[in-house]
Amino acid sequence: MALSTQPYKGARDFYPEDKRLQKHIFDQMREVVESFGYQEYDAPLIEPVDIYLAKSGEEIVNDQLYSFEDKGGRKVAIRPEMTPSVSRMVAARRQELAYPLRWYSIPNLWRYERPQRGRLREHYQLNVDIFGVNDISADHEIILIADSIMRVFKAPTGSYTIRINSRKLVDFFFQDQLKLSDEQFHEATKLIDRWHKIDKADFEAQAKEVLSSDSHYQKLLELLDSKGLDELPTGLKSHASVEELRKLMSLLKESGVDSAGFDFSVIRGMDYYDDIIFEVFDTSPENNRSMFGGGRYGGLVGDFGVEPVPTVGFGMGDVTLQIFLELHKLLPALESEVDATVILVGDVYEAAQKVLTELRQKGLNISVDGTDRKLDAKIKNAAKAGVKYAIFVGEQELKTGKFKLKNLQSGDERELPSNDLVTEIGR
Amino acid sequence: MALSTQPYKGARDFYPEDKRLQKHIFDQMREVVESFGYQEYDAPLIEPVDIYLAKSGEEIVNDQLYSFEDKGGRKVAIRPEMTPSVSRMVAARRQELAYPLRWYSIPNLWRYERPQRGRLREHYQLNVDIFGVNDISADHEIILIADSIMRVFKAPTGSYTIRINSRKLVDFFFQDQLKLSDEQFHEATKLIDRWHKIDKADFEAQAKEVLSSDSHYQKLLELLDSKGLDELPTGLKSHASVEELRKLMSLLKESGVDSAGFDFSVIRGMDYYDDIIFEVFDTSPENNRSMFGGGRYGGLVGDFGVEPVPTVGFGMGDVTLQIFLELHKLLPALESEVDATVILVGDVYEAAQKVLTELRQKGLNISVDGTDRKLDAKIKNAAKAGVKYAIFVGEQELKTGKFKLKNLQSGDERELPSNDLVTEIGR
Repeated sequence: MALSTQPYKGARDFYPEDKRLQKHIFDQMREVVESFGYQEYDAPLIEPVDIYLAKSGEEIVNDQLYSFEDKGGRKVAIRPEMTPSVSRMVAARRQELAYPLRWYSIPNLWRYERPQRGRLREHYQLNVDIFGVNDISADHEIILIADSIMRVFKAPTGSYTIRINSRKLVDFFFQDQLKLSDEQFHEATKLIDRWHKIDKADFEAQAKEVLSSDSHYQKLLELLDSKGLDELPTGLKSHASVEELRKLMSLLKESGVDSAGFDFSVIRGMDYYDDIIFEVFDTSPENNRSMFGGGRYGGLVGDFGVEPVPTVGFGMGDVTLQIFLELHKLLPALESEVDATVILVGDVYEAAQKVLTELRQKGLNISVDGTDRKLDAKIKNAAKAGVKYAIFVGEQELKTGKFKLKNLQSGDERELPSNDLVTEIGR
Repeated sequence: MALSTQPYKGARDFYPEDKRLQKHIFDQMREVVESFGYQEYDAPLIEPVDIYLAKSGEEIVNDQLYSFEDKGGRKVAIRPEMTPSVSRMVAARRQELAYPLRWYSIPNLWRYERPQRGRLREHYQLNVDIFGVNDISADHEIILIADSIMRVFKAPTGSYTIRINSRKLVDFFFQDQLKLSDEQFHEATKLIDRWHKIDKADFEAQAKEVLSSDSHYQKLLELLDSKGLDELPTGLKSHASVEELRKLMSLLKESGVDSAGFDFSVIRGMDYYDDIIFEVFDTSPENNRSMFGGGRYGGLVGDFGVEPVPTVGFGMGDVTLQIFLELHKLLPALESEVDATVILVGDVYEAAQKVLTELRQKGLNISVDGTDRKLDAKIKNAAKAGVKYAIFVGEQELKTGKFKLKNLQSGDERELPSNDLVTEIGR
């Protein structure tokens, strides 16, 4: 029986046109994060399963981890996220590294999920982290980078919003003010994460059940409805976490970020965030959802037996980003990397080697069609492959050193010496 | 108990200096293969296990495959090689694709092996394939690319050799001339693969046992000792495969490849090669071994239920290449991607945002040190991180628009307006 040509369910094949788009997206990301002084690292795609058991959310570990035993009996997993790996790497060189440490990576991550729009079993995720900075400047820089990436893709003002919250504020409100039990608190955070997703009546019913109090529900509603930090109830307005949020907003404004605002419903699923958190939302009605986010976390490096390092970071997935870019028509039409196809006329493959080498050494990307198909078929084929130019090389051309160049898009033809070919094709 | 900071056994962490080197190596590879008109593709790192059972060598499937059942009961494997994946992708679009099809990829591949020098459990492998060309021009192009990659790394003439053989010639000699049984044939190919690795007396003893004939051994020895195609025994010299090899050698010479020669001991492990095969050897006494290789194969696309496509390709691993480059001192010293660190003097983080944005938008990669450490500590730290320049920004500088630039390598200091900083740092 023939093998299936389908890729593994929930995973993608990247044909050259897909890979070209991916490279364009990654190049733009790299340009931004490197301009902020971040350096790229990577880690193995397999890790000992232990490093996920400690801090990754329960859902990931129990239901979504690609875990197995290797042939030596070691329990391992394909990475579902990058944070445990990068924390391990920082811990391994805790003393030697220079802080503030700015690192990024674009790993391929795997989770066993039911494939659906915007959620596959694998995606690439830009991970950006700054290690070793205690004050709000790190939170500011990370959010500024997230915004700069949206802008490098030319996302118009208003097409996305950056919603910011503080876990410390969440803790203070639910634990110190409402005095919820641990279980209630857990349920309450899960619920507010759904604030923008479910309708208000459903939310009210569920909130009243979780909080088991009408007045608590009213207080929560007031918080969720706050349009800014100054509108917060008096008991919260002066909390230290709100002071931090206020400084952050001021810094963001000063550096030109105009899409950021406070939103108490932002929670982030991961268990390890413990201070400022943020999410970037697509505002279009067709795709009104969180695209990516991040925040501050302290504990992960410490789990590896060294002194903890304060860290702020975010992870931005390629699948959700690409949906955003498509929806807002921000994906450019990218040309083939092949500049020209040399079409051989007659049995001149060996004789043409010198001119082929010359064109390539001058920086052109040149494929060659030495098949015995008819000229017409060769031209058609080059056009089908998306190549812009054809260069015809036969005995006559090799003798005179002049070559016919055909623009396959316009149909224009010119006869040029090889040097001028390079200029004309122009790279 | 603290988690281990070690990566999974046989796998590598890439700290920024390692990643920088990897990117340099991959960039060079991409430049060469793209100049020949090849386009990059990729496939999922997990594949259904079936696609390896058909054609990958037995050793891989039985002992080295990272295979497991996913949570839905599907038998899957982490890819140990790329050829089955790319064949699947070509088969899926057999009709729509334009031939000759030139594709490359640099996947991360996994095999469960005993880690040793030059052999880890994961490596990256440049895969270059041309699909749809029946004649020797494809074999020539692929070997020319392999040679061009060695040259782009400035490997000197004589530091490597390209050893070429033909599976058809091997088949003809062992099966038609010596009339070996299938089992003998299998043993004989495994043995000649060890020709350069074991000593001659051992080889003789083993060869006589496998071939069970003294005169067969003498014939084999004659073949292995042949320095060129013209020295081959009369019964082989005129075989069609030798005619092909002769054409190939002539083409390679014409295109400036001077490291290639015939070597009957080249076999290639993979079961699917069926015609011209080649290996690139490091000639240095410290590392006298095969670095990488490839050849022509026909069947793999056909295994997916479509008409087969003739293919020639090779796979070049990053670990062995890097050992070669280190040994021959061909690895350049690469500078940090960070152009300069802005050292803030006083509480000016917010006030400095404009100049930071300006420097970044002009193309500089700028990190910022806003910690409250002493100035000396900050300068030391920037130097430790390998950054070449420090720019000092305090209230005074923000007022005058002139900034002190310190070259951390030479110690030189200059005072410059922000525009001139960009020119001086120069990117």
